[in-house]
Amino acid sequence: MPRERNHWGWGWADEALSEAQVREAAGGLAQHLGFGSAEAERAVPLEAVELPAPRLAPPRAGADAALAGLFADDRASRVRHTYGRAYRDVVRGFRGDFEHAPDLVARPREEHDVARVLEWAAGAGAAVIPFGGGTSVVGGVEARVGAGYAGVVSLDLTALDRVLEVDAVSRAARVQGGVLGPDLEAQLAPHGLTLRHFPQSFQFSTLGGWIVTRAGGHFATLQTHIDDLVESVRAIAPSGAWESRRLPGSGAGPSPDRLLLGSEGTLGVVTEAWVRVRPKPVHRAGRAVRFGSFADGAEAVRALAQSGLHPENCRLIDAREAALTFAGDGSCALLVLGFESAHEPVDARLESALALCRAAGGSWEERAEGARGGAVGSWREAFLRAPYVRDVLVAMGVLSETFETAITWDRFAAFVETVRGAVQEAVREQCGDGLVTCRVTHAYPDGAAPYFTVVAPVKRGEEVDRWDAIKRVAGDAILASGGTITHHHAVGRDHRPWYDAQRPDPFAAALRGAKAAVDPAGILNPGVLIDPLRAPAEAPLAPPAD
Amino acid sequence: MPRERNHWGWGWADEALSEAQVREAAGGLAQHLGFGSAEAERAVPLEAVELPAPRLAPPRAGADAALAGLFADDRASRVRHTYGRAYRDVVRGFRGDFEHAPDLVARPREEHDVARVLEWAAGAGAAVIPFGGGTSVVGGVEARVGAGYAGVVSLDLTALDRVLEVDAVSRAARVQGGVLGPDLEAQLAPHGLTLRHFPQSFQFSTLGGWIVTRAGGHFATLQTHIDDLVESVRAIAPSGAWESRRLPGSGAGPSPDRLLLGSEGTLGVVTEAWVRVRPKPVHRAGRAVRFGSFADGAEAVRALAQSGLHPENCRLIDAREAALTFAGDGSCALLVLGFESAHEPVDARLESALALCRAAGGSWEERAEGARGGAVGSWREAFLRAPYVRDVLVAMGVLSETFETAITWDRFAAFVETVRGAVQEAVREQCGDGLVTCRVTHAYPDGAAPYFTVVAPVKRGEEVDRWDAIKRVAGDAILASGGTITHHHAVGRDHRPWYDAQRPDPFAAALRGAKAAVDPAGILNPGVLIDPLRAPAEAPLAPPAD
Repeated sequence: MPRERNHWGWGWADEALSEAQVREAAGGLAQHLGFGSAEAERAVPLEAVELPAPRLAPPRAGADAALAGLFADDRASRVRHTYGRAYRDVVRGFRGDFEHAPDLVARPREEHDVARVLEWAAGAGAAVIPFGGGTSVVGGVEARVGAGYAGVVSLDLTALDRVLEVDAVSRAARVQGGVLGPDLEAQLAPHGLTLRHFPQSFQFSTLGGWIVTRAGGHFATLQTHIDDLVESVRAIAPSGAWESRRLPGSGAGPSPDRLLLGSEGTLGVVTEAWVRVRPKPVHRAGRAVRFGSFADGAEAVRALAQSGLHPENCRLIDAREAALTFAGDGSCALLVLGFESAHEPVDARLESALALCRAAGGSWEERAEGARGGAVGSWREAFLRAPYVRDVLVAMGVLSETFETAITWDRFAAFVETVRGAVQEAVREQCGDGLVTCRVTHAYPDGAAPYFTVVAPVKRGEEVDRWDAIKRVAGDAILASGGTITHHHAVGRDHRPWYDAQRPDPFAAALRGAKAAVDPAGILNPGVLIDPLRAPAEAPLAPPAD
Repeated sequence: MPRERNHWGWGWADEALSEAQVREAAGGLAQHLGFGSAEAERAVPLEAVELPAPRLAPPRAGADAALAGLFADDRASRVRHTYGRAYRDVVRGFRGDFEHAPDLVARPREEHDVARVLEWAAGAGAAVIPFGGGTSVVGGVEARVGAGYAGVVSLDLTALDRVLEVDAVSRAARVQGGVLGPDLEAQLAPHGLTLRHFPQSFQFSTLGGWIVTRAGGHFATLQTHIDDLVESVRAIAPSGAWESRRLPGSGAGPSPDRLLLGSEGTLGVVTEAWVRVRPKPVHRAGRAVRFGSFADGAEAVRALAQSGLHPENCRLIDAREAALTFAGDGSCALLVLGFESAHEPVDARLESALALCRAAGGSWEERAEGARGGAVGSWREAFLRAPYVRDVLVAMGVLSETFETAITWDRFAAFVETVRGAVQEAVREQCGDGLVTCRVTHAYPDGAAPYFTVVAPVKRGEEVDRWDAIKRVAGDAILASGGTITHHHAVGRDHRPWYDAQRPDPFAAALRGAKAAVDPAGILNPGVLIDPLRAPAEAPLAPPAD
C-alpha cells in the first residue's frame, strides 16, 4: 500500500498537524503577520467530500483484466488527483470542493501500460491528464477540459519510479519519469551521484513533471532549469514512442527534447529520461550579504551574473521577505550567496564574488554560512517549510501565494517596482491589508527572475475570487512591462490568457500543428498550452463500451 | 557595389591566388602530404559557366518597381547562390557545374522586403531558399527542391547587416540576421563588446545562418552553440512575423526560439535576433599539452569537462592532425587548452586544469601559449587557413573534407576507433591512399564532439562520387555506433538519410505539422529537414504572370 498524500494540502496524510499543533502555529503566525485568525478553520475531511458521479466506466475486468487492474474510481483516488497545489487548489480542497475530479485514475505499473491507457482513452473519447507529483501551481492537472470529452482519466505515473541505469563515466542516469525527488536522490546516492535539482516542490514532484514544466531548480546560474540537465527523453505519444538519442550535444535540426521540455503533457507522457548527474559537492562556501536596498543588491547580482563566477546560490531577498521568513530583521535586503564544488576549493570564487558585492555596497559577517544556521539557514528552512505553512494560513483565512517571472537587466528595477506596486494596490483593494515581497531566484548575464510572494488577510469563502483578481493584475502588469508570465512555474490552464498574448502567433500555430500530428484525437491534457482540439460536437454521445 | 565572392571557392573574388601562388602552394602541399598533383588544374572562370535557362521571370518593373528592384537573374548572381561550401560544392563549382542554379536571386534591403518576396514566390509557385553567407557544408542552400515547384528564388539576406541596438546593461544587442561575422564584431567593437562566436566559417557566415543551423563556435565548453547566445529571435514566416520576447530565461511552454534554432530556413527567415554579448577578454592563459595517445588526451578532456573549470578552449588534436596542420611533429596528441576572462585572472583555473592533465599523463612546456605563436598559434592559423587551402587541394586532385558528430563518454573511445577505422577503410577503397584524422572540438560533462578530417588523392572528375561513397560509410558508422549525424554542421539536404533515421518519428511528424501550419504552401527551403510539402502535380503548369 503506497503512502497516501494529504488530500487537500501539502505533505503526507500521516504527518498532518494535529488540531493543537495547528492552533499553536496559527497563534504564532497571526502575531508575526499582524493579521489572520488564530481560530483555525478545519478542513473538510476526505470521507465528507462529495463528488460528481463518474462519467466513464473503467475497462471491464472480464475483457482485459490487466488493463482493468490499472484503473480506480474510488473517492480517495479521484479526490487526490483533482488538483495541483496552487493556493486556489488548496483552498478549494480545504473546503471540500472537488467539482472537477477526474472520472477515473489510471496507475501504470510499467511503461507499456501507458500506451494501453492512451489507446483505451482514445477509444472512449476521454481526455488523459498525466499526473506526476500533483504539485502544479497553474492548473496543469485539473480536469477542466471543455465539453468535447466523454470524461477524464488522470494518469498517475508515480509507479514508474526507478533509476534504471547509471553511467558513471558520462555522469548520466536513465530514470523513469514518475520518480519523486527524494526517491531519485536515494537511488543515486549509492553511486555517489546526485541530480541536484531541488525545486521547492522537490518532495512531491517527479522527474517527468520537472521536464514537461521546465522546472527551475537548485542552481541560481548556468543550469537554472531542468532543461540543461536532460540528455535525452523518452515519451509515449498517442502516435508512438518519442525517444531521442543520448547525446551530449547535437545540431541536427531543432532539438526534439526542447519541444517536449515545457510541453506540459500535451505532446506525450514522459516515461524515461537520461539526466546529467554529478558527484555531491564537498567544497562549500557562502555568505549572507546585506544591502541597504533591493536595487543595490540587484546591481550586485547583475555583476555576479556577468562575472563568469557562476555562483551556485545567488538569491536576493528583499527586506520585507527577509523579515517574513525570519532571515533578517527587515532593515535590509539579503543576498544568499553560495559556491559549491565536488572538485575544487571554492574560497577564491567566494572572495571574488564578495569583492563585487562590496563594490555594490554589500556588507557581511565574516562567519561562514552553510546550509544550516545563520541567515542562510533560516532562509533555507523557511523555503522548505513554506508549503506546509501555507496550509495553516489557509485555515487562518490568510491568502498566501506566489508568482514569478523574468526580465532583462535594463528594465529590471523599474519592472519590479511597477509589478510590485500594481499588485500591492490590488492586494489593498481586494484584502484591505497584506504585503507583497520579492526575491530574485535565478540570475543570468542578461537578466534575472524576480519571484513575488503575496500574504494578506482574506474573507473566508472569497479566497479564490480575491486571488484571481490579484493574479489578473499581476499577469497584466508583467506582460505590459515586458516580462514572461512564468520563469519556471509553467503555463497550465491558469496562465493561458497571458501565455497566449506572449508567444509568437506563428509559434502557436506551429504548436497546434505539432499537437495535431502526434495526438490526432487531442486526448492529452486538453486546454493546457493550446485550446482543446476536440469541440463538443465531436464527443461521443455516451461513454462507449470497452 | 558590394565586394564579390569567389564564385566557386573560399574568400573574396579580388583576393584569389595568382597562378604562380597556386603553383607554389601546390608544390609545398604535395610534398607535405606525399600525394596530389603539383600541377594544379584551373577553375572554370565565371564567364565560361553555362547555366540552365531560368524557369521564373522576375516581377515586372512596371507592375511594382520596388519589388522588381530586389530581383536579379544575371549569371554571376545565380552562380554565386548555387552552392554552399562543402567539398562537393567546391569541386562542382571549380569544374563549372552549376546545374542547380536558382532561377532568381532576391536581395531584400529592409525586413519588409522579405515578406513581399515570400508572398510573390508563393503566388508564383516558387520555392524560396534563404541564403546568408552561403557556407553550408550540407547542401542547405542548393536548389534541389524536387519537381513540385515552378522554380527557385535564392533569398540573399546579406543587406540586412546592421546592429540595430545595444543594451550595455543587459549585455545584449539587437542584430539583423544577414550580418557577416566580421561586420558584426566591427559594429560591436565601439561598445567594447563582442559576441565571441567564431565558427570556422566566421568570415563568410551570418548571424541568421548561425541561428538556423545551430552553429558551433568559439567556446569549447558551456556555450558551445549559438543557441546559448540567443536571447530572442524574429523571423518572417509566410504566415506572419514570429518574434519572441527578450527574456533572460523562461518556462512558458516549449521555447519558441528553440524551434527556430536548427530550423534551417524551413519555418521562417530570421531577420533579427537579440544576442548575448560580453566585454572582450583581457585575462588569458593557455598551454599546449602533449599526450602519448589520443585516448589519454580524451581522458583529460573528460576530467576537464566534468571539473566545473569551464575552459574556453579545449581542443584535442590527434597526432596525425597535429602533423598535418604543423601544430606538432606527429609523435603525440595535442590539447589546445585556454582560459579567458574579462573580469578575473585565469591563472588559477589554468593551474587546476593542468593538474588534471598531468594526472592523465599530459606534459607541456612552461612557456605560456597565446593566440599567436607556438603550437597553439600554428593550430589556430591552420584552422583559419583551412578553407583557403582546400581550394588549392581541389586544384591538385586532392579530396579534402570533414565530418563531425557527438557521443557520450562511455562510448567515446570505441566510437572514435570504429568510425575512424570504417572511414579509413573506405578512403583506401575509394582513393587507394589518404588519411583520416580526428580532433575534439567541444566537450561536455557527459560527452564530446569528435571532428574528423579526410585528405586523400582522388581521380579528377570522380571527386563527388568518391566522397559520397566515403561519406555514406561515415554516416552509417556514426549512426550505428550511437552518434549524431551532426554536432554543429546542420542537416541540409546531404544529411537527410541519417537525420531521418536518428530523429524520433513522432518528432518528425510534429515538425511536419508545425511546418504545414506556418508555411502552408511549403515554399521555404523544400527538402531540408523534411520532404517537400508540395508534390509535382501541385505545381503550376507554367510560371504565372506577376
